[in-house]
Amino acid sequence: MKMIKTATYEEMSEATVNILLSHMSQEKRVNLSITAGNSPKKIYEMLIPKVKNKTYYEHVHYYNFDEVPVEGQAVGLTMSALNEAYFEPAAIQPANIHPMTTENYQAFPQEIADAGGLDLMLIGIGADGHFCANMPGTTRFHEAAYRIDLTQKVAEPWYEEVKKDLNTDCFVTLGAKSLMRVRHLVLIANGQGKAEILKQALNGPITPQIPASILQLHPNFTVITDAEAGALLKDK
Amino acid sequence: MKMIKTATYEEMSEATVNILLSHMSQEKRVNLSITAGNSPKKIYEMLIPKVKNKTYYEHVHYYNFDEVPVEGQAVGLTMSALNEAYFEPAAIQPANIHPMTTENYQAFPQEIADAGGLDLMLIGIGADGHFCANMPGTTRFHEAAYRIDLTQKVAEPWYEEVKKDLNTDCFVTLGAKSLMRVRHLVLIANGQGKAEILKQALNGPITPQIPASILQLHPNFTVITDAEAGALLKDK
Amino acid sequence: MKMIKTATYEEMSEATVNILLSHMSQEKRVNLSITAGNSPKKIYEMLIPKVKNKTYYEHVHYYNFDEVPVEGQAVGLTMSALNEAYFEPAAIQPANIHPMTTENYQAFPQEIADAGGLDLMLIGIGADGHFCANMPGTTRFHEAAYRIDLTQKVAEPWYEEVKKDLNTDCFVTLGAKSLMRVRHLVLIANGQGKAEILKQALNGPITPQIPASILQLHPNFTVITDAEAGALLKDK
Amino acid sequence: MKMIKTATYEEMSEATVNILLSHMSQEKRVNLSITAGNSPKKIYEMLIPKVKNKTYYEHVHYYNFDEVPVEGQAVGLTMSALNEAYFEPAAIQPANIHPMTTENYQAFPQEIADAGGLDLMLIGIGADGHFCANMPGTTRFHEAAYRIDLTQKVAEPWYEEVKKDLNTDCFVTLGAKSLMRVRHLVLIANGQGKAEILKQALNGPITPQIPASILQLHPNFTVITDAEAGALLKDK
Repeated sequence: MKMIKTATYEEMSEATVNILLSHMSQEKRVNLSITAGNSPKKIYEMLIPKVKNKTYYEHVHYYNFDEVPVEGQAVGLTMSALNEAYFEPAAIQPANIHPMTTENYQAFPQEIADAGGLDLMLIGIGADGHFCANMPGTTRFHEAAYRIDLTQKVAEPWYEEVKKDLNTDCFVTLGAKSLMRVRHLVLIANGQGKAEILKQALNGPITPQIPASILQLHPNFTVITDAEAGALLKDK
Repeated sequence: MKMIKTATYEEMSEATVNILLSHMSQEKRVNLSITAGNSPKKIYEMLIPKVKNKTYYEHVHYYNFDEVPVEGQAVGLTMSALNEAYFEPAAIQPANIHPMTTENYQAFPQEIADAGGLDLMLIGIGADGHFCANMPGTTRFHEAAYRIDLTQKVAEPWYEEVKKDLNTDCFVTLGAKSLMRVRHLVLIANGQGKAEILKQALNGPITPQIPASILQLHPNFTVITDAEAGALLKDK
Repeated sequence: MKMIKTATYEEMSEATVNILLSHMSQEKRVNLSITAGNSPKKIYEMLIPKVKNKTYYEHVHYYNFDEVPVEGQAVGLTMSALNEAYFEPAAIQPANIHPMTTENYQAFPQEIADAGGLDLMLIGIGADGHFCANMPGTTRFHEAAYRIDLTQKVAEPWYEEVKKDLNTDCFVTLGAKSLMRVRHLVLIANGQGKAEILKQALNGPITPQIPASILQLHPNFTVITDAEAGALLKDK
Repeated sequence: MKMIKTATYEEMSEATVNILLSHMSQEKRVNLSITAGNSPKKIYEMLIPKVKNKTYYEHVHYYNFDEVPVEGQAVGLTMSALNEAYFEPAAIQPANIHPMTTENYQAFPQEIADAGGLDLMLIGIGADGHFCANMPGTTRFHEAAYRIDLTQKVAEPWYEEVKKDLNTDCFVTLGAKSLMRVRHLVLIANGQGKAEILKQALNGPITPQIPASILQLHPNFTVITDAEAGALLKDK
């Protein structure tokens, strides 16, 4: 694990943008999987002007790592958020965007492998220790991709939010098995609210109750935080 | 996971020898970690004449992945077994053998990394699901290398054997974190006695009660069995 | 460069078979490019029984590295030779065989890249220093793949043979640029007749007059010879 | 080859800084070889504040790729220039700086290999097509590292400059063989004065008269230019 504790959210974002742009600058087809949410907002703000209409980034392809279908909507929550935050403002070509859905999630890991594998995945971490949609209580470390149906109530705080607020009865996600195959795994976290869970997930034992704890096993794993989120973490 | 179910112990051994020799045939310094025990006996029998006094394999280095110190003996159980089964008959130069001991185990993973990392590790699996010395009840997935002291009795079948029969009060082992960094992980298993545990470890969920189950996460993992050991395994 | 000087043609072939089988034993899709001709005859003899009808090698794909179209024949010389020597007796599925032809050669390098790149290429060397169809007098090191039309006579010994004996007026080949992208490049040579050219190609300066001399630049290059072919080569 | 034609020197420098910082952000020991000269001045300006006293970059090591000893000076031209432009202002620890000299150049490639190889090399190109100190008339593509003694006059424009102005009678450099082993090779060029040579070196045939032309063979080669330097280059 490579710890990069920066001072500010701005610095955290800048360090992450560097890594994203560098992977994009390779000769080969580059496959990225990036996260939606609040943590990366500044990252995409910085990234968009550097990527938009740059023909030398035309060989960069994007894959989402989870999806939450919403009743009556064609596009799920994750892709909607990525479209708004990055794909549309950066004018990424549809042919370079490869959505995982509740239909194709089982074949998705092989599709990624056949395209040369993921060069980089950018993820966040939830205050409950989840990564992608690997949630406490439903995580399946050994699966490359799986679907969770919310038919049977799970005794976890996130259940209500996902089931009710997000108005869905299932979600799909890549599992730890797929993340272990990513060449460079980057986790970003900012703010005091992430300090305690980062310590538990990255400096503690591996347990499905803290799904992100499994990521300690990744052979090329970079963690980038601001001062607050990194406050309780060992330097190495 | 790459499943190679061969018909016989002979074929399993031959398929493994091919992989070992191939890694040895690279231009770079090659770092291997190989297992002692019964399963690989035929492998070393086949390997020795191909390796002995071959100057073109002088760049191959060896690391043990665990060690059990024995009271009143300078060399531990693992290294003793490897010396007898392979290092001595193959005339491997002492400078190419890098022992992990109860003294240096904490620094060993970094020593391996500084030497370019392990290209291949050959392991077996115990009927109780252990790999290297990652035992049910004492496994620590998140550690690169760790030591288990047998001061406090562990409620596991293996405890008596290790403590009494092996006449030791501790052992050291590389952990799952180190194995995830090996470029090619190869597990061999033969005989009916391994069929059920292989099924549980490789086709079931990941759990510390079956330490080898974590190996499903390895990105380049080859499992080679004879017909009996592979009988209950999925083909992929 | 990794030099493996074995004693006999038999040993050279066996060492090469080991490397081929090992690459085939990886988890990922495996892409190989193999040579026709006399040197590998024993290799394919040994390989066929180990590969034929083995479901665990179904993920292995094959690409030819050159082709010589023959008037009035649907299949060129290279693919015809490979079909006879290996693909047919080993019962390789047509879907796993990817022929380069005079039609598709320009797109072929990208097709290979999109499939994950070549894991291993097995080549021989001509007494005139040619590799694949990179011939003295017409070599283009900087091309990934190119076509040579035999309209203008080339002042090289090979010209008559190719033009007349092979009854063709052109050929296509992968160039040095493509070979530099192969993860593991293996060159085999046996017999006294190859000793002098091997010395010039591998221990001398790089020159288009000895096309194979460029291969010295490959970062993971293994040369396997019998005693006669390796007689004049440095050990490293 | 990956072409990144940016609009300005500022943009070229920023794109290069991204790549440098990204490689530095890996978990493993990172080995870099960077260039002195005018082109990278802005790069180091941008890089210094991001690297200075950052403990998370302590695992980054530096190697020079050539050296020109100067009579009566302990440190050669290249290391002096790198010290002034980057190592000193960035407060890089001496233990992380590994100088190649006229004494150790023969052992230097192996020293680099034993340290895990170079992750990235940043180079420029001369108006005469030289890279590192691989000069027209004295280039040796097949050498990993070599020394040129200026005892016998070479009929090349650079001879006078090196011999007289630089007040030296020899220089050492890594050769193309070493560069082919670098995981990511990055060439920067800015200004009209580089446009013509870039075209010849990167879009023309490979010839020792234009040493940099050999770099077309590198499997992961990124070229970053400003608008002027890239004006005559193909986009791919």
